[in-house]
Amino acid sequence: MSAYAALESHYARMAHISGALEILHWDMAAMMPEGGADDRASQLATLKVMHHQMATDAKLGELLSAAEGEPLDPWQAANLREMKREWRHATAVPEALVESLSKAGSTCEMTWRAARKADDFAALAPKLQIVIDQVREVAAAKAEALGLSPYDALMDQYEPGGRQARIDPLFDELARFLPSFTDEVLAAQAAKPPIVELEGPFPVETQRAVGLEVMGMMGFDFSRGRLDVSHHPFCCGSGGDVRITTRYDEANFTKAMMGVVHETGHALYEMGLPEAWRGQPVGAARGMSAHESQSLLMEMQAGRSVEFIQCLAPRVKRAFGGDGPAWTAENLYRIYTRVRRDFIRVDADEVTYPAHVILRYRLEKAMLSGDLQVKDLPGAWREGMLALLGVAPDTDRDGCMQDIHWMDGTLGYFPTYTLGAMTAAQLFQAACEADSEIKPALSRGDFGPLLGWLRPNMHGLGSLYEMDALLTHATGKPLDVEIFKAHLTARYLKA
Amino acid sequence: MSAYAALESHYARMAHISGALEILHWDMAAMMPEGGADDRASQLATLKVMHHQMATDAKLGELLSAAEGEPLDPWQAANLREMKREWRHATAVPEALVESLSKAGSTCEMTWRAARKADDFAALAPKLQIVIDQVREVAAAKAEALGLSPYDALMDQYEPGGRQARIDPLFDELARFLPSFTDEVLAAQAAKPPIVELEGPFPVETQRAVGLEVMGMMGFDFSRGRLDVSHHPFCCGSGGDVRITTRYDEANFTKAMMGVVHETGHALYEMGLPEAWRGQPVGAARGMSAHESQSLLMEMQAGRSVEFIQCLAPRVKRAFGGDGPAWTAENLYRIYTRVRRDFIRVDADEVTYPAHVILRYRLEKAMLSGDLQVKDLPGAWREGMLALLGVAPDTDRDGCMQDIHWMDGTLGYFPTYTLGAMTAAQLFQAACEADSEIKPALSRGDFGPLLGWLRPNMHGLGSLYEMDALLTHATGKPLDVEIFKAHLTARYLKA
Repeated sequence: MSAYAALESHYARMAHISGALEILHWDMAAMMPEGGADDRASQLATLKVMHHQMATDAKLGELLSAAEGEPLDPWQAANLREMKREWRHATAVPEALVESLSKAGSTCEMTWRAARKADDFAALAPKLQIVIDQVREVAAAKAEALGLSPYDALMDQYEPGGRQARIDPLFDELARFLPSFTDEVLAAQAAKPPIVELEGPFPVETQRAVGLEVMGMMGFDFSRGRLDVSHHPFCCGSGGDVRITTRYDEANFTKAMMGVVHETGHALYEMGLPEAWRGQPVGAARGMSAHESQSLLMEMQAGRSVEFIQCLAPRVKRAFGGDGPAWTAENLYRIYTRVRRDFIRVDADEVTYPAHVILRYRLEKAMLSGDLQVKDLPGAWREGMLALLGVAPDTDRDGCMQDIHWMDGTLGYFPTYTLGAMTAAQLFQAACEADSEIKPALSRGDFGPLLGWLRPNMHGLGSLYEMDALLTHATGKPLDVEIFKAHLTARYLKA
Repeated sequence: MSAYAALESHYARMAHISGALEILHWDMAAMMPEGGADDRASQLATLKVMHHQMATDAKLGELLSAAEGEPLDPWQAANLREMKREWRHATAVPEALVESLSKAGSTCEMTWRAARKADDFAALAPKLQIVIDQVREVAAAKAEALGLSPYDALMDQYEPGGRQARIDPLFDELARFLPSFTDEVLAAQAAKPPIVELEGPFPVETQRAVGLEVMGMMGFDFSRGRLDVSHHPFCCGSGGDVRITTRYDEANFTKAMMGVVHETGHALYEMGLPEAWRGQPVGAARGMSAHESQSLLMEMQAGRSVEFIQCLAPRVKRAFGGDGPAWTAENLYRIYTRVRRDFIRVDADEVTYPAHVILRYRLEKAMLSGDLQVKDLPGAWREGMLALLGVAPDTDRDGCMQDIHWMDGTLGYFPTYTLGAMTAAQLFQAACEADSEIKPALSRGDFGPLLGWLRPNMHGLGSLYEMDALLTHATGKPLDVEIFKAHLTARYLKA
């Protein structure tokens, strides 16, 4: 057996373990009775240790070197490149440090849950400082092993090839653009007659039925996936078994509805990944910005398009037995494109969301470099909010304690949300330019043409290319902030 | 760390893997979309290999010996005894033989599915012969390692301590008793006015609601378990997360209803196992006859008692909006105790079921010893059916090809069904003698007193004792066929 073939077989077995972990996580969130919590935690921990042992297996270094000299086709070569990246990340950090960060993260997360409720940043700060200190050690170790800066080394785990030098100018341009743009959008929206609110209740069963109908329109294959309920919506699984979840609110169907569209975007990406490479690193999604681009392409570009809302409005009206001006396509479109200055990232609209992300991106870089101490985080947060969004929260609960990410040491992840939003705009524009039928089809609820473009240009390529090359292959150029700005301008000022 | 403590930690990690396997199996049967089949098979295979590697880990032999010399309390000593048993079974058979039997079993099972449909025993025979030949090798290897006869060595996997010398006289006595007893029962039932059939449809949602209500009465803790749907009903999981399934037929609710009672019996056993020993061999169910005794105690002893049917009849009548003589407690009781001579084991009633098992027990012993060749199985089957049940099927589909067990090499399992039925009768009798409130409480749908006896006398003891000792501890004597005969006589001839 060639070294390369031995590697494929090794990574396939690792994929079996991670596939099992996905289902166990899904089950925990969507099905498991509470009494299963302790045993499940043990099962997950044991499987993760086994996965980690395989990822750092002593024989891998030699096999990876030996495979370099073997004749490989482009997919195999890309697969080997991705194996190397995974192996470098897995072996860069001493075992003891991995464990101690994991423990510090768990402790900090528990403290955070109570401290957030009590709005008590002082209680959180010492625990968070420990996490940040250890993340700095991890970042230094990864930087050394990967030949990257510490922040890039962290980001590379979530966004392979993501580099601060590339992101800074994009985000700086957005940070320049957004404050005055947001003012203009808010003024334009205020000048219009008031939005008519939709009045419920909206029964869960109906919401679920409409959601399933929309998933079907979008091309979700129910022989290869399911829709369930969980507290935090997510998408998991891969290839032949992709599962999404949502969470229903009987007072408001619009959030769960577009949440389903969002998760279906993730799911369609997973369902469209190259089947021949399932379970191999090159067959996986390109990275977190690529994944988020697929959910946001569906939710923000296609799902909130005038065309699709025209299709959706009469269907929800009929399903919920709605009547009156609240149920027109125009009013529903306005609900789905309403902009507000708010403190909370997860509730933010398409226009203000990047400001939330840029704030976090800047703060986590500063914490990692040591320029910002944890104790100074609340002040820096308020300052940044005022500069980027023009509002600042009164409490840390609605400020620097709102997100879970930093609590378990996840730094370098936040930028992928806005990279994803920009990528989505760029892909959707290229798709619509390549096929003028895409938008008209959306008004009939037909996502076929859009999916027909995404399959060969994005989904089916897996991790064959690095992200910028993938985007250039699909759209003719690397990520371009002007396209995202043009999208926002067209939707929010010119419509 | 003591050798014993190292063993506990090792077996705990094995339990995490097998716990994960249980959930993956449950998911496959109850939740998984069809597209997940290939990946799931790979996930299961990889985890099973890992579990097997841990079960045969080279260090275990030494640790088991070393632990013998350490001071252990009775539970620890029993735990060590069970570890040794598992280890002996796991290491008795050469790896190559395990794999080759597994492959032969898969091939035979696939052939069987088609051959059964076509009623083509000739197509099945050569594949089944290969399986039986390899099972004989496995049995010989296990016999050697365990110091048992080949059949006992196989049975010991499912029924620890189960021995042919102990079972033969019990089954022989039943085989003498049943033919004429069945004649008498059929004559007695024929002498009564006809049973009034229940007429549906019975909506699945109502069946599910009544099933959940009955599970609640029985003491099923929904914070530690769930009820779902699968093609073949089963119970899986353990301790804090026990899941049962059923299968609904809108034309007939009685089967799914009592199926839920049966699976709840299994689940209550799992939920009642000693929590302090969860994940350790001594904390597991005592064996398959013990497990089946708990499902049959609930289904056949308590669930089909006059008392409980009095409680159930008005509830199902109300739930399904039933009316007329079909819905009286007396008629429902007669439906639930109807005896028929039939060819199919899984559809058999309490009276004829043992005959089906004894037939299989005798035939598998003969195949294992070489006294019966696979090619002669159909003839031996018909002969045995006539002797034990007085009827014989026209086809092999309804004869020796009806069960899956032999196809994948499962020999030594069948006797546990009838051992379980006898054990159930003996336990129920002892429970009712110990607490005269048990039966009256059942008529109010209150399983509390029954469960109150089972918890300390059966469930909470896990695998502390060998089976005969457990039964003696609970009922004052080892398994006694006369109690089962007395139960059948009382219910079917004296009522």
